[in-house]
Order: sequence, then C-alpha cells, then structure tokens
Amino acid sequence: MRISGNPRFASSRLIICMLFVCALAAQAQTDPLPSWNDGAAKQAIIKFVQATTNQASPSYVTPDQRFATFDQDGTTWVEHPMYTEMIFAFERVKDLAPQHPEWRTTEPFKSIIAGNQAAMSKFTGKEFEEIFVATHTGMTTEAFQNIAKDWLSKARDERWHRPYTDLIYQPMIEVMQYLRANGYKTYIVTGGGQDFVRVYAQQVYGILPEEIIGSAVETQYTYNKEGQGILVRSAKGLLNNNFYGKPEDIYLFIGRHPKAAFGNSTGDQQMLEYTQAGEGANLEMIVLHDDGQREFAYGPAHGLPATDIGTFTQALYDEAKSKGWIVISMKNDWKRIFAWEK
Amino acid sequence: MRISGNPRFASSRLIICMLFVCALAAQAQTDPLPSWNDGAAKQAIIKFVQATTNQASPSYVTPDQRFATFDQDGTTWVEHPMYTEMIFAFERVKDLAPQHPEWRTTEPFKSIIAGNQAAMSKFTGKEFEEIFVATHTGMTTEAFQNIAKDWLSKARDERWHRPYTDLIYQPMIEVMQYLRANGYKTYIVTGGGQDFVRVYAQQVYGILPEEIIGSAVETQYTYNKEGQGILVRSAKGLLNNNFYGKPEDIYLFIGRHPKAAFGNSTGDQQMLEYTQAGEGANLEMIVLHDDGQREFAYGPAHGLPATDIGTFTQALYDEAKSKGWIVISMKNDWKRIFAWEK
Repeated sequence: MRISGNPRFASSRLIICMLFVCALAAQAQTDPLPSWNDGAAKQAIIKFVQATTNQASPSYVTPDQRFATFDQDGTTWVEHPMYTEMIFAFERVKDLAPQHPEWRTTEPFKSIIAGNQAAMSKFTGKEFEEIFVATHTGMTTEAFQNIAKDWLSKARDERWHRPYTDLIYQPMIEVMQYLRANGYKTYIVTGGGQDFVRVYAQQVYGILPEEIIGSAVETQYTYNKEGQGILVRSAKGLLNNNFYGKPEDIYLFIGRHPKAAFGNSTGDQQMLEYTQAGEGANLEMIVLHDDGQREFAYGPAHGLPATDIGTFTQALYDEAKSKGWIVISMKNDWKRIFAWEK
Repeated sequence: MRISGNPRFASSRLIICMLFVCALAAQAQTDPLPSWNDGAAKQAIIKFVQATTNQASPSYVTPDQRFATFDQDGTTWVEHPMYTEMIFAFERVKDLAPQHPEWRTTEPFKSIIAGNQAAMSKFTGKEFEEIFVATHTGMTTEAFQNIAKDWLSKARDERWHRPYTDLIYQPMIEVMQYLRANGYKTYIVTGGGQDFVRVYAQQVYGILPEEIIGSAVETQYTYNKEGQGILVRSAKGLLNNNFYGKPEDIYLFIGRHPKAAFGNSTGDQQMLEYTQAGEGANLEMIVLHDDGQREFAYGPAHGLPATDIGTFTQALYDEAKSKGWIVISMKNDWKRIFAWEK
C-alpha cells in the first residue's frame, strides 16, 4: 500500500489534522471557565457575558456601563479560620511588642503576645479596634504598604503552608479574566482594608489600585522633613465597607450600579441587591462554602456549621433563591479551587 | 515652453505637492495643542508627555502609573462671577420656593428669592450650608442627577448667554485628549460636588463617572416601595475636596501620586505639592486668570484684582515660581479660550 505516500492523500490527512487542531482550539476558546464544572452557575456566567456583549441582544450593555464587583474574603480568597488581614494585625502586634513593654500587661495585646487563643476568640469590637489602630495607623501610606508587603512575602498559612496570596480561588480569577476580556471593569469591594488589598491586587487579581474599594481610615496631609507632601494614616474611620457600606461606597467610587456582583456572606447582601436594582441585565452570585475537604465548610445555611467569619445565613440563602441569585457550590461547581492544585 | 506639459515634470510636481501635503500633515500631527500659543507652557506639556512615554527616556512612566488630575472651577471651566454649582443652588431655591412658603421670611432663602445680591454676597458659611442641604440632599442619587441635568440643559450664563457646559476651556480639553492619547488616565479633582460634575463630565470632558473625585455627602442605603435598594443623599458631609482634601481624596480613589496636576487657586496648592512629591517625572501647572477681555481677571497675584472665588495669592505665585510649577497665562498662552470662539 502506498496510500500514505500519495501526495493527495497526505494532503487530505494534513487538512483533516488541521481541522482537528482548529476544532480543539475552538473548543478551548469556547471554555473561558476551565476550572468550573458544567452546571447552572457556569452557564449563568457565560450566558450573562454573551447576552450583555452582543449588540443584537435585548440585554446588551454599552462598554462604559460594564462593571463587575467582587467581595474578597470568602469570595475570591480563603477567609477561614480567620481573615488574613486580622492574622496580619495579630502578627504585627507581636513584631511591635519589643517597642511596647506595656503591652505585656495590657489587653488585648497581652493575649496576642501570649498566643492565648481562647482569650483572642472573645475579643470585643473595641478590642479589635485597638489592635487595628496600633497596627494600621500613625504611619505614612507608603510605610503601611511596605509593612504589609513585607509581611505578605514572608507569612505562610497554617493549613497549606503557602503565602496567603496563593489562597486565591482559581475559578474566580477565570471569571475576572473572562469579564475583562469582554470589556468589563472588575472591582474588588471588600470589608477589608483598601490599602492592604492594594498591595497585592494588581499582581494576584490583575485589579489596579483605583479599582479597589475597601474600608478606609482618614489620611491627613502634612509635610516631611524635606517639606514634601505626605499622607499619614489617622485612627479615624472614613469608610466601613460592609453591609450597607458596600452600595454606598460603590456609588461613591463608580457612580452607578454594577452589572454583576459576587459575594459569599450577609455582608454582601446589600451589594447584590443594589446590583439587581440597576436597569437592564444583571447577575448576582454568592459562594457557599460547602467543601470542608478541599477548603472549609460553613454557613449556617444549608445545614452547614455556623461561623462568625463570613456568615451565610439561611435567610440569605432563601433571599438568593427567591431573587434569582445564583448560589455557587464550591463542592459541585468548582473543578479545582486553587491554581496550584494537582 | 512645454515644460509644464512634460510628464516627467508633471510627475515631479505631483511628488512635490504630495511631499508638501505630507509635511502639512506631519506638522498637524506634531501640534496636539492647537489652541495654545507657542511658549513655555505649551512646550512644558509636550516635553512632559514625550519624556514620560518614550521608553528610552530616563523619565519614562509605565502606563499603569499615568495619572493626570484637573481641578475644575477656574481650571477647566469658568468660575466667575460665581461657581456654577452655586448658581444652580440659588436657582434651585427659587424653583423650590412655592413648596416652602416659610422661606419667604427666613434667611438665607428670603434674600435668594428676592434676588438681593448685596445680602447674598454676605452669606456666611453656615448659610451656604443651609442652602446646600436644602438643594442637594434628601433625594435619591438618581433624582439629584436628573435635577442637575435638567437645570444644566436650560440654564444660560449672564455674560455669553450660553449653557454653562459651553464655558469649558478648549486648551484644557486639548491637554486632556493629548494625555489620554498617550495612555494617561485623566481625573477631575474638584471642590465642587462629585455628583453634579458626573452629570456632564463624560459628554464635555470625556471623563467617566469613576474618574470624578469631588466633594461628597454620605449616602444612605435604603429601600423604595418596590423593595429595591436605593441611595438617598444625606446632609452629612463625607469628603471636602479642597486644599488638604485633594491629596487625601486622590489617594483614596487612585492610591498613588498623580504624574501631572492642573489647578488655578490656593485650593489646588496641596494637590500640586503632592504630585511633585511623587517619584520620577511630574508636571504641575496653574492657570492665572489675567484676561478680563476674553474671560475674567483676578488674583490677587501679579497685581490682578482680589477675589473670593478662585483666589490665586501672590504667595502661591511665588511658590509656583520657586518649585518650577508652570503658571499658565490665559492671556498669553491661550490662542482661544472657548471652542465656539471665532
């Protein structure tokens, strides 16, 4: 048989081979969310993007109106057993302790230095505020960013022994990239500190400093020894970007309703409501942490264990179902959670 | 003589003609600021843009750091004899007067309704605040924007009898366009109300709502009759975007120093200082209103008449000169002031 040597047949095989490669490429192109299992959540995202970017669609959204907002803790990265920024604050207290001998006998610092977990789990709001003021204020904005950057480069989490910036949910990174590839501006809207998140957001999320909306203290403009203008972080709160604060601050920063919003807890409820209250197409999604094996399991919605960190109540679950918000099951909707998973 | 009929000569003439057209086109390309007279101000802008966008230049600025901030009143549009938003507030008081019979006997409303200019010129800060609260708060964010949009579409200024949005300085529009064409993000940073400016900024400046930093009140998230999330403008101030407030709010919104800043009064001094305090190349420019013929003349810098609206003191003028900030003379640097000028 010389069929293989026949130039016409060889050429046909080449064409078939090329078609196959093209088909594979096309398939790759049509799956912008490879870390998502096929299901209602994945389909809702794709349908939303296609409908709002197709000029022939009744749901078409002009490019200048394409905004998507993402809560951070529990939505785009791990928040259990404790918010990363809180761990930073606790460890910062230990780092600063030698300069504050009085902390060895004063709460809440005493318990942090002693590593007294039982006492730390009972800290009051006022005590958390004291810790925040001691670790997050009194320095220039640049100095704070350097402190946070330095800590993030060295700190490792207890469960996976990885930098905290490795604990980002890969499926959410894909959603951000998919949205941006379709003309959406992606914003982080976090109860965490705006300046803490700005330190790493560009690198890990591809989200620029001006696209981070977070809780913030007032800064005070003054001058350094060289007479240059500097900003010092004061102890006075300016934005509390949780619950009602989220839609209020979204409006302050972008002046309109987002078209899509992603959250995971009761602190995100108002952001999702406000997104849905805008005119035209919109998408609301909420992450349920139901995968204790690969990440953490907490609710108390859906019979999951209760928690104070990222509470997702049954009432919120019911609201989501009644309003057409999509509940993302980490267990069922996410093929993998972290980029470094096997 | 048949030289003109010689195809070779005709072809040469064509080539010369084409070269001439190309030269003209090249000249047009190299003048991104046609409403500016040649001089130090125009050259400073061009030199800054070229140096910061040329990768071979020691002053090169990466695209993600290219931010330019513009004060509005007196820098990008007319602020005399009175800030436009203040005129809006006074006229809004008159529009609302029938619903407030008590205003006919209560200051400061009484004087506004009576058109008592002498009394109005003596209003205290507290009285201005009362006027602001009565005209700018208590409604949803959407309702306020509709009120402002409606007024702007109908109101005409006293001198030129034009819409206020026609009183934009064409040279500054060209600077904004030139900067954006070179990868800069352009922001308005105004002592005026953020939401007032957002109504027209996209249309007149090409600046999006998320690129407007201004004075702002707190909004309160609540629900309308249909249970939808809405934001109501409260009477509580959140951002006072003047003087020290400008660098503080620039940092809140964009998280870094601008590379270029444009102002015209003492209220812009700190913004310019903060811009200069950033690392690397920077440009600071300040508009001097020295053209009473074509616009208004006020200082008191440079021997110009004193004013309370957009004060440019001699001390600021001296600071500008000592720090290398460029003073823009409207009279000498601007070939035309408005787009509709002959």
